[in-house]
Amino acid sequence: MKKKRVLTGDRPTGLLHLGHFIGSLHNRVKSQSTHESFFVIADLHTLTTRHTKDHVRKLKEVIHNVVLDYLAAGIDPDLSIIFVQSSVPGISELNTLLGMLVSAPRLERIPSLKEMAKAEGLDTMPFGLLGYPVLMAADILLPRADLVPVGADNQGNVELARELARRFNHLYGEVFPIPEIEMEATLIGTDGQTKMSKSLNNAIFLSDSAAVVEEKVMGMYTDPNRVKADIPGKVEGNPVFIYHDQFNGDLEEVLDLKDRYRQGKVGDVEVKRKLVRVVNDFLEPIRQRREDYARQPDITMDILSAGARRMQDESQETLTLVREAMGFQNYQVSMIQEEPIQQQIKAIGGLAFL
Amino acid sequence: MKKKRVLTGDRPTGLLHLGHFIGSLHNRVKSQSTHESFFVIADLHTLTTRHTKDHVRKLKEVIHNVVLDYLAAGIDPDLSIIFVQSSVPGISELNTLLGMLVSAPRLERIPSLKEMAKAEGLDTMPFGLLGYPVLMAADILLPRADLVPVGADNQGNVELARELARRFNHLYGEVFPIPEIEMEATLIGTDGQTKMSKSLNNAIFLSDSAAVVEEKVMGMYTDPNRVKADIPGKVEGNPVFIYHDQFNGDLEEVLDLKDRYRQGKVGDVEVKRKLVRVVNDFLEPIRQRREDYARQPDITMDILSAGARRMQDESQETLTLVREAMGFQNYQVSMIQEEPIQQQIKAIGGLAFL
Repeated sequence: MKKKRVLTGDRPTGLLHLGHFIGSLHNRVKSQSTHESFFVIADLHTLTTRHTKDHVRKLKEVIHNVVLDYLAAGIDPDLSIIFVQSSVPGISELNTLLGMLVSAPRLERIPSLKEMAKAEGLDTMPFGLLGYPVLMAADILLPRADLVPVGADNQGNVELARELARRFNHLYGEVFPIPEIEMEATLIGTDGQTKMSKSLNNAIFLSDSAAVVEEKVMGMYTDPNRVKADIPGKVEGNPVFIYHDQFNGDLEEVLDLKDRYRQGKVGDVEVKRKLVRVVNDFLEPIRQRREDYARQPDITMDILSAGARRMQDESQETLTLVREAMGFQNYQVSMIQEEPIQQQIKAIGGLAFL
Repeated sequence: MKKKRVLTGDRPTGLLHLGHFIGSLHNRVKSQSTHESFFVIADLHTLTTRHTKDHVRKLKEVIHNVVLDYLAAGIDPDLSIIFVQSSVPGISELNTLLGMLVSAPRLERIPSLKEMAKAEGLDTMPFGLLGYPVLMAADILLPRADLVPVGADNQGNVELARELARRFNHLYGEVFPIPEIEMEATLIGTDGQTKMSKSLNNAIFLSDSAAVVEEKVMGMYTDPNRVKADIPGKVEGNPVFIYHDQFNGDLEEVLDLKDRYRQGKVGDVEVKRKLVRVVNDFLEPIRQRREDYARQPDITMDILSAGARRMQDESQETLTLVREAMGFQNYQVSMIQEEPIQQQIKAIGGLAFL
């Protein structure tokens, strides 16, 4: 039986953190042997809100680090296809075609786009940002993905991809599977306020050193009502215990800490010291692998070149199906003879005219 | 000195007519030895308002006829590059990038787009139609055209192309010449009401037979106040005399007819009979060449294949400049060794994790 295809990915905006691990990387690593996995590093999508030369120039380094984070987290480039969006011209081809199948008002109604524009301080909607979900649909539909794990921010975008797949199939014939949406888990940030996010300064990165992890964990938000260690504390929704639940394999220790915390019999400092150990134990092999890979200067380039080549094949296959279904003539066929036009025209007679 | 590049073209919506000849084809034929000429058959643009399978399937035949009309009118495919838009993936790539550099409200303000939507009976603006001018900018900027002859309908679109070229050059460095706009002449339709247009049933096609031309000319609108031949008539703005001025090389005959018409000394029938002869004399060599070319079943395909190949080279050249100027890393470079990733990873040690 053919493996189902999963497509997911990241906009290259910075280093990956524990939130990415819990929400996505963990599942990617688990499913890469059971699914055919495509991971897009969506650099073109970053241009929808930031397109300066400075921004584009920085992408190379950010992408290099995203791939190192992938490898460090356990993504195996022999099992999974990792590619940079801008290296796959077929995505733009499909993007142009899919843009014909949706109305501008339909896109204007997707709430995340307005939020993105607002968050970036843009006072008018860039045309490219309005087309963000169409470009994402092209990412998803080019490898004809069956399954798309996404965060809540992107749910509306993938719903559009499903609509476009249905609309295309209805208009021209079955080419695309309707991709299923799989909602990703989130991890609360160290500030306990909202989900972990680089831009909110509440993230522990996969590449953070042991000392940085210690500093970040020791500064974590806990129960704000617990001003002294002997006041009974709240475990539920307390980020320190959420992290213990996620990363501490010693369930007895976690139960004991929770118990004592509820009774006011343990200080925040002890709970956090144990969490420092737990998070560093979790990150140490990731950091180690990351350093090993980082020492090989060409590894990320080689992986992304292989990904670009593989996506070239996927593009050819899908776009041939797309063009045939739509009824486009293929004018790129190679000519059997070379230079026959000139000869044919000469045979008809001169073209001197007017 | 390098020849200037001109880009113009047609949406493949039907046969070309005398209005196309006067407005554009005539100039294309004249300038093809002095300019490097690119003629785009913009099939993707037709999808902005009509994207059904039926529509796409019909494009092949329409495109075939447009190329025959080009050849019949005197366009020499050894001097000029004729290509179908959908056969050039680079146009979509540039389209996606240029879409990042313009706001949606800027596009909404282009009046021709709303008019097109209205004319096609569309009650919402397709996203692809909103992007019509961006896609046209990609047509123009991909071959880095210096000059763009256009009709009044497209003036606003080419102004956007100039803006996008300027904006790109300003943001990333000089890649694109700012294309100059050259306004095309128009020819009034046989109904004397508005410019010649297939959809208004007021067109004489380059491929019309002598008999059809006779019928169309004899039915032409003239001076509506001249109910009898002995009433003095108006020459100015009279389509019959506009056509005589355009196509009748016998200036004495034209002067004599105008004189007698103003004095009420010539009937419409005589003026029209002479115009039938003039238009058929003009069209006869065009019809003849069209028939000669039409007998060669592969000629249009061969020309369009050659055009697609040539545009492949142009795409590579321009997109390399574009990507280097913007600062994109090229991940499509071929790897020196084959399969090094696997070996490198094996060297680091297993990836079994979690």
